[in-house]
Amino acid sequence: RAVKMTGNQNTWNDLLPNFPKGPLAGYRKKASFNWKEMAVFIDGEDIIQLKNRIFSALESDPLFAHHPGEDLCREKYQELTFLRCKRLFEYDFLTQQEFIENPLRILTLVICMGMYDWSPTLQLFLHGLVFSGPIMSASTRFAHIMKQIYKMEIFGCFALTELSHGTNTKGIRTMATFDPSTQEFVINTPDIEAAKFWVGNMGKHATHAVLYAQLYTPDGQCHGLHSFIVQIRDTKTLLPMPGVMVGDIGKKIGQNGLDNGFAMFHNVRIPKENILNLTGNITAEGKYSSSVKDVKEHFSAALGALSSGRTVITAISTTNLKLALVIAIRFSAARRQFGPTEDEEIPVLEYQTQQWRLLPYLAAAYALDHFSKSLFENFVEFFAGVLTKQRNQRQTDLGREIHALSAASKPLASWTAQQAAQECREACGGHGYLAMNRLGDIRNDNDPNCTYEGDNNVLLQQTSNYLMSWMSCIRDKAPFESPLGAINFLQDYHHILGWKFTAISVEECMDSSVPLAAYKWLVCYLLRESDLKMNKQKQAGLSDFEARNNCQVYYCRSLAIAFIEQTVLQRYHDYTHDPSVPTALQPVLKNLSALYGLWSLSKHLAVLYQGGYASGEQPGRFIQNAILELCCRLKDDAVALVDVFAPPDFILNSPIGKANGELYKNMWGEILQGNKTLTRPSWWEEFCINKPVRGRLRSRL
Amino acid sequence: RAVKMTGNQNTWNDLLPNFPKGPLAGYRKKASFNWKEMAVFIDGEDIIQLKNRIFSALESDPLFAHHPGEDLCREKYQELTFLRCKRLFEYDFLTQQEFIENPLRILTLVICMGMYDWSPTLQLFLHGLVFSGPIMSASTRFAHIMKQIYKMEIFGCFALTELSHGTNTKGIRTMATFDPSTQEFVINTPDIEAAKFWVGNMGKHATHAVLYAQLYTPDGQCHGLHSFIVQIRDTKTLLPMPGVMVGDIGKKIGQNGLDNGFAMFHNVRIPKENILNLTGNITAEGKYSSSVKDVKEHFSAALGALSSGRTVITAISTTNLKLALVIAIRFSAARRQFGPTEDEEIPVLEYQTQQWRLLPYLAAAYALDHFSKSLFENFVEFFAGVLTKQRNQRQTDLGREIHALSAASKPLASWTAQQAAQECREACGGHGYLAMNRLGDIRNDNDPNCTYEGDNNVLLQQTSNYLMSWMSCIRDKAPFESPLGAINFLQDYHHILGWKFTAISVEECMDSSVPLAAYKWLVCYLLRESDLKMNKQKQAGLSDFEARNNCQVYYCRSLAIAFIEQTVLQRYHDYTHDPSVPTALQPVLKNLSALYGLWSLSKHLAVLYQGGYASGEQPGRFIQNAILELCCRLKDDAVALVDVFAPPDFILNSPIGKANGELYKNMWGEILQGNKTLTRPSWWEEFCINKPVRGRLRSRL
Repeated sequence: RAVKMTGNQNTWNDLLPNFPKGPLAGYRKKASFNWKEMAVFIDGEDIIQLKNRIFSALESDPLFAHHPGEDLCREKYQELTFLRCKRLFEYDFLTQQEFIENPLRILTLVICMGMYDWSPTLQLFLHGLVFSGPIMSASTRFAHIMKQIYKMEIFGCFALTELSHGTNTKGIRTMATFDPSTQEFVINTPDIEAAKFWVGNMGKHATHAVLYAQLYTPDGQCHGLHSFIVQIRDTKTLLPMPGVMVGDIGKKIGQNGLDNGFAMFHNVRIPKENILNLTGNITAEGKYSSSVKDVKEHFSAALGALSSGRTVITAISTTNLKLALVIAIRFSAARRQFGPTEDEEIPVLEYQTQQWRLLPYLAAAYALDHFSKSLFENFVEFFAGVLTKQRNQRQTDLGREIHALSAASKPLASWTAQQAAQECREACGGHGYLAMNRLGDIRNDNDPNCTYEGDNNVLLQQTSNYLMSWMSCIRDKAPFESPLGAINFLQDYHHILGWKFTAISVEECMDSSVPLAAYKWLVCYLLRESDLKMNKQKQAGLSDFEARNNCQVYYCRSLAIAFIEQTVLQRYHDYTHDPSVPTALQPVLKNLSALYGLWSLSKHLAVLYQGGYASGEQPGRFIQNAILELCCRLKDDAVALVDVFAPPDFILNSPIGKANGELYKNMWGEILQGNKTLTRPSWWEEFCINKPVRGRLRSRL
Repeated sequence: RAVKMTGNQNTWNDLLPNFPKGPLAGYRKKASFNWKEMAVFIDGEDIIQLKNRIFSALESDPLFAHHPGEDLCREKYQELTFLRCKRLFEYDFLTQQEFIENPLRILTLVICMGMYDWSPTLQLFLHGLVFSGPIMSASTRFAHIMKQIYKMEIFGCFALTELSHGTNTKGIRTMATFDPSTQEFVINTPDIEAAKFWVGNMGKHATHAVLYAQLYTPDGQCHGLHSFIVQIRDTKTLLPMPGVMVGDIGKKIGQNGLDNGFAMFHNVRIPKENILNLTGNITAEGKYSSSVKDVKEHFSAALGALSSGRTVITAISTTNLKLALVIAIRFSAARRQFGPTEDEEIPVLEYQTQQWRLLPYLAAAYALDHFSKSLFENFVEFFAGVLTKQRNQRQTDLGREIHALSAASKPLASWTAQQAAQECREACGGHGYLAMNRLGDIRNDNDPNCTYEGDNNVLLQQTSNYLMSWMSCIRDKAPFESPLGAINFLQDYHHILGWKFTAISVEECMDSSVPLAAYKWLVCYLLRESDLKMNKQKQAGLSDFEARNNCQVYYCRSLAIAFIEQTVLQRYHDYTHDPSVPTALQPVLKNLSALYGLWSLSKHLAVLYQGGYASGEQPGRFIQNAILELCCRLKDDAVALVDVFAPPDFILNSPIGKANGELYKNMWGEILQGNKTLTRPSWWEEFCINKPVRGRLRSRL
């Protein structure tokens, strides 16, 4: 991405307010850089202005007010979420023109609204993009529906998964049978296991669904999965349409403002026109046809459509990672516990263990933030090609490459955020476990990112399959490259496999070029080992299906993870080492890049030894010592580094994470606002009057 | 522990009912052993009978009935928890006689009640053991209070932590100033940061607290932390006592039935007699005295008291681990997704990745279950010595050893359970994310185990300090041993450091003796490295405080973890390799022991290479292949292995975890019972009538 001009101090101060004084002032003073310069460097003025606009709109609107101590029941939360979703719709923060000018704005919008709460954000996103997207790209004949979507006259959901089939979408069993006599499709759910399930917005609100079903012609033949527009509720009453049984699947671990639902269909008839056919067509007599060219194009477009969700989830997860870190690092800088003498306690951020628990995640947040934005820009390029009907090889290759990247970056980002949320919650001790401080909600709301849009472990196979597909080129020493260049280094495969760890000091390891070289070797090594194992399995007579399953653990799965970490690191290394980076920001950015690289690599250390890239005590020790040294160097920058991406206190909504660092005052303020904090329990007689008699019920045993 | 006789088939069938037929029958049939034989072998008839008694009492009691789909608000949940706590008190499942006969019964009781719900269990536990324990052991002059506790005329809590001090208990600042004029202590909270905080039962119910405060004599001198009995609420009205501000700290991530509270004191007067002094005394004139002998004894007893909590948490965490596994493994055996052909789908348990994600945790559950019970028995031995006032060296050494073991086993078990709950939730895909299936609650309720009774990372320092304390003996080659023998192998320290990985095949690695030997080397190596680093730091002029902090990551912290894993493995290895194990159970138990050992060890593989214990490609490959092979061998036993420790369906309360394996029917049953599952939202007009106007609020921006 183009490096943004960082302007001057006056601009920075107009865009970004100063923080209040307080316990964090000491660390802020010690920072090696100006956090405002960093913020402007990373986001640019344009995006910062958009952020400010969104944040301040939410803060000024009573519908988004927080109610400390309130114990919102799920039903009320769903209602509030819908009202907020409508309100976001009314703000309409971005015009189409603004979006086209700078596509990163749409990502910024999703992230800023999501920082407040993912439920209304995703509700709007599901309606306005996930539901409307396939309709818009299917055909212009749905213009009237697009208009209804645009005005929220109808409310949509995307109904793919069923009770017994999620990740294996081919196993979907909802039926759409063509009836030539009425020129309609008849939708049926064959049994309860084929009920549509988990569908966001379907629980309470959706009036229409993009519904996936197996298309059957009158001769009883099945022509595979197709999607259809099906009305499920009356738009005037929100009551179910005849033949539709639709409801709410109940409480989830997180995102409980969103209404996830189920639906079963009994002879529900929809006009023939409601098919969103891309690969095939059906004649009035019920004959099905599809062209190979169509199928191919459809496949490329479908891969792209899948990538959009995963690209956005990569960014959403990174946002959760940041939120958790803002809270935990500000807490760690303000919280004092133990110290060199009885009387003097030091901030817990001064402890090596605390630094090592948190700062690598901080580095990961910076690296993943850069990656998720650059991947989004790649996706925008690809999608522009889809919209303009590009049919060249580059477009196809780009679709495959983005698919391979997003299928691994979604697992990487969602797992990193999930683990970080847990680590942050523990690093804040008991106070991290108090719901008001939000780390529980962040973890719970992030949790589905590991599952939806493809289970993380299953998705990683897409990436390793892609990498393995280059093995024949590699073996034949044929030249190859990919549009984004992510796999270009594999051309040096044979050469790279001969590399060794050569650093001879800790100091030398403290640049991301060292882990980056190790990663290139690691990817080549795991690729070779995966390929060998796969061939061995096949030679032993196993089917492709079995062979692939038996090559996942320690091989293909590790390969996909190492590859995506390497890609994220490569992009961040290039970004931080670009000569156009402002001088004042270079040291801290390079430290972040090195820490992210070394820390990620350290999880693969055993493989480096196993494969002979490293040997002896030194490599491991150098890497470990470099990680600890980088943590130590970054500790005084940590508060400023989270200040860069922290949303305003109102949005963050965490007493221990507030910018003033006044942990205890903030918590008291919140607690004393709580409902019935100090009042006697209404059931006090159950203690004072109705005394239990010990052992009274023993005779029942 | 003594191996229990497993009796015969008739006894087994009387004790343990058969499971219903259904999708799990296939796996149950394939199991290599009889699950009832295993259950009787592990628990013994006596404990199984107790379990049955507890489980069936809860199931038969309407107060414990489940209400599917109910969205209990926190206040109602607190009320219900208190009612259930009283009911448990009335059942009084164990008489004192029964407890003394077999102390494991008390652990079984806590675990069985907790499997249903930890909130009422811990509420009763806090009142009946944590609050009453220090009072009972302090002096017989509190007999009248013990009687009130026993009858629940008063309700207790244990008030140690403050808002700004948790793990660093020395930093507690609540004051108890002796006033000779009235022979009273005057309790004061100097400021809000010294408010008692997090105290379980204090939020709504407790009438009395065991309160920790700094004791001040009239001359203004501080004599350190002491505990006192302080009344905080009126027993007739549950209203706060004069001068006490007491309330509820609000919602937590988990365990929300329990009322955690805060309290501030303003000149609250309590009689002099209410001090629970063990180390010191105060004269009528306000002179403080303490004897060194008293202090020593107090220290030993205090270590023991701390160990009790950590020992129980080790067992509680292991219980959570088991609950999560029952759900995830039954789900994985019944859930089918993908397959070798389009038409044939196979259980997800058949996939290598799924096995590798879950089965090592299953092995960990078995190993930790054995360890937590044996540690509890060690603790009972120690506690008997405290009660009978044993003052010999063995008693002191035993206290230290149990302290070192429990300070590491609590982190190991709580982290293992936390990670397993997350893995199980993800392994069940979307259905694992549905609240009704309980994996979220298990994870959330387990979460505080990582923090209370000492933050896990801080606690591990206790264990590494203990291990480091033997270095002088090791250096001097002086003989040494500990009462439980956990550190006896360190006598061979110099010899062990010369060991190498010698296995020459995967097959050879498939016994726990291989990882066990590697662990012994690992502990010695990390001990040496930690000691070297510590000395280097001190030589460089760092204070003890700084030196210790800088030796945690990669050194002392890893040392403590490796040591406790080694200890757990040693005990489980001995248990499973005992010749008295019934022949039919030996193979599966040995597989579990080997898998636990290898999988735990694999996380330290880099260190084995780094330190020269392993070299070349083979050791890592052997260990990895052995893990995969053991997973494969255990997959057909997995369902039977969770059947062994699964509570009845009513207690487990998870549709996808039910014994019948009818995932989808169970889920539908639950969903359709839900409150308003199918009804239109009460706010339907917000969609149908009050239409949002897109962009209406743009002007506000």
